[in-house]
Amino acid sequence: MTQSVKIQAPATVANVACGFDIMGFALEAPHDELIVRKTNRPGLRLSDKTGLGLPLDPRANTAGQAALALLEHLGSQQGFELEFTRKISPGSGIGSSAASAAAAVFGVNLLLGEPFDRQGLVQFAMQGEAVASGSAHADNVAPAVMGGFVLIRGYAPLDLVRLPYPKELHCAIVHPEIEIRTQDARRILKQHIPLKTAIEQWGNVAGLVAGLTLGDLGLIGRSLKDVVVEPVRSVMLPNFAQVKRGALEAGALGCSISGSGPSLFALCDGREVATRVAASFRDAFREMEIPCQTYVSRINELGAKAVL
Amino acid sequence: MTQSVKIQAPATVANVACGFDIMGFALEAPHDELIVRKTNRPGLRLSDKTGLGLPLDPRANTAGQAALALLEHLGSQQGFELEFTRKISPGSGIGSSAASAAAAVFGVNLLLGEPFDRQGLVQFAMQGEAVASGSAHADNVAPAVMGGFVLIRGYAPLDLVRLPYPKELHCAIVHPEIEIRTQDARRILKQHIPLKTAIEQWGNVAGLVAGLTLGDLGLIGRSLKDVVVEPVRSVMLPNFAQVKRGALEAGALGCSISGSGPSLFALCDGREVATRVAASFRDAFREMEIPCQTYVSRINELGAKAVL
Repeated sequence: MTQSVKIQAPATVANVACGFDIMGFALEAPHDELIVRKTNRPGLRLSDKTGLGLPLDPRANTAGQAALALLEHLGSQQGFELEFTRKISPGSGIGSSAASAAAAVFGVNLLLGEPFDRQGLVQFAMQGEAVASGSAHADNVAPAVMGGFVLIRGYAPLDLVRLPYPKELHCAIVHPEIEIRTQDARRILKQHIPLKTAIEQWGNVAGLVAGLTLGDLGLIGRSLKDVVVEPVRSVMLPNFAQVKRGALEAGALGCSISGSGPSLFALCDGREVATRVAASFRDAFREMEIPCQTYVSRINELGAKAVL
Repeated sequence: MTQSVKIQAPATVANVACGFDIMGFALEAPHDELIVRKTNRPGLRLSDKTGLGLPLDPRANTAGQAALALLEHLGSQQGFELEFTRKISPGSGIGSSAASAAAAVFGVNLLLGEPFDRQGLVQFAMQGEAVASGSAHADNVAPAVMGGFVLIRGYAPLDLVRLPYPKELHCAIVHPEIEIRTQDARRILKQHIPLKTAIEQWGNVAGLVAGLTLGDLGLIGRSLKDVVVEPVRSVMLPNFAQVKRGALEAGALGCSISGSGPSLFALCDGREVATRVAASFRDAFREMEIPCQTYVSRINELGAKAVL
């Protein structure tokens, strides 16, 4: 019987412009890597080979808390070890904590004989996510576990919908080395919005879902507009309007803030366009003398997975 | 060359619970019927065989204004006569004025050799709709012209998306004899809404679009929730909560206010359920001693059409 698995769980883009708090999708790169081991000693122990100095108290670690939520739900006394071997930069806005939580529950579930399917694991990963962001959102963890585009229709009860999408969709990501705390990004949002603005937003959300499911790239592009959150949060990002304009001029279907930033994402028709868009991102931040990483990726169809 | 056509244009349900101002669908019954005739005398003349005493000044009549908008756009000097032979009850909340506007532009366009496709006609029908409701909305006229479910992603520019839907969907409608003016229904809405509520609404909108396009009746039912408009407008409808509960108990997937009311609609899996739901509507209003009409209908796939 397998006693140990190496798990990869992907970076994810939450919000997806108009889909604030209800949608996310998974990337092929970057990803977290976690070795999950059964141990004879009960309890959960964490170790860190990434050099990032991750918190090793399971309750203070997203992966630890997620694994504990799963084990406690099952009433399992099985001991586990989680060894972090590769980590998406924390605070990047591409679901670093969600990837850890997803990897942990996916690996533990696998070694326990898969009592849960992927969708069933999301609730536990959410409890890990709460350690990082202060609230149990699913818009990163759901795609990190399940892959693809995931709609969170509602939370009471949790209602997850895997959306089909056109396979030519690629994503360009830029992670500039700027610090934005999720809590700060949340605090600056207005708690009330004009009804007129909300209507515009849900027209775009509806258009995005229709564009994804119908495979209409033009409609996806026209719908990737956030009139609620981006106008507020973009002030935290240097030259946002100009960077975004550059991405659109390089051919992106749409471009917005990934999660609560500082990363930006752009959805594109094919790898070639996404590569050009990533270059436009790099040039824009180079000009501002802000170091950055860029990624070009298809949509990750699978989500978390065991690797050799 | 044809000089005269009889046109039917269907009743429509706008808003569709969570899709306030951005969505509508067409019914098989009831409908408007309008005879459109070319005349040698230039100008537009209206006549009314319905006995409803419709306004016969073209600028004060939704059909007249819609036809004029089309003719003026084309710079056409062709004279036309519009004869109303059948009319959905005005003020019913199932798109009576939209049906007239749709029938007029559809018939005039046909007799002019179809310079516009159905989607292209919507902009002119909207100008007719503005006569009735004071603003140029498309959520009734677009499905009245185009049939099916139509998403209005945005207005600047007008972006209409015909959504696929599961063919087993049927609709039960009840039109109680209560008067609600569209302007009043609009006036009582709050101009700002909590962000939290808006997020819940756009989760449901996204779920509804996904449910329709993926043919997932359960998801459609879970998504047919309006947390923004229904809670405000339903106070204008006697015993709304009880009538709605009756419809859900009779098997409806979801039930809400059609347009700005007073009609209610319920989407159902099949004609049999819809017939039961219509009966529950009838019973509820009979108990309140409020006269009502009910309709059971498939979704109208075609929209406006010429008949013999």
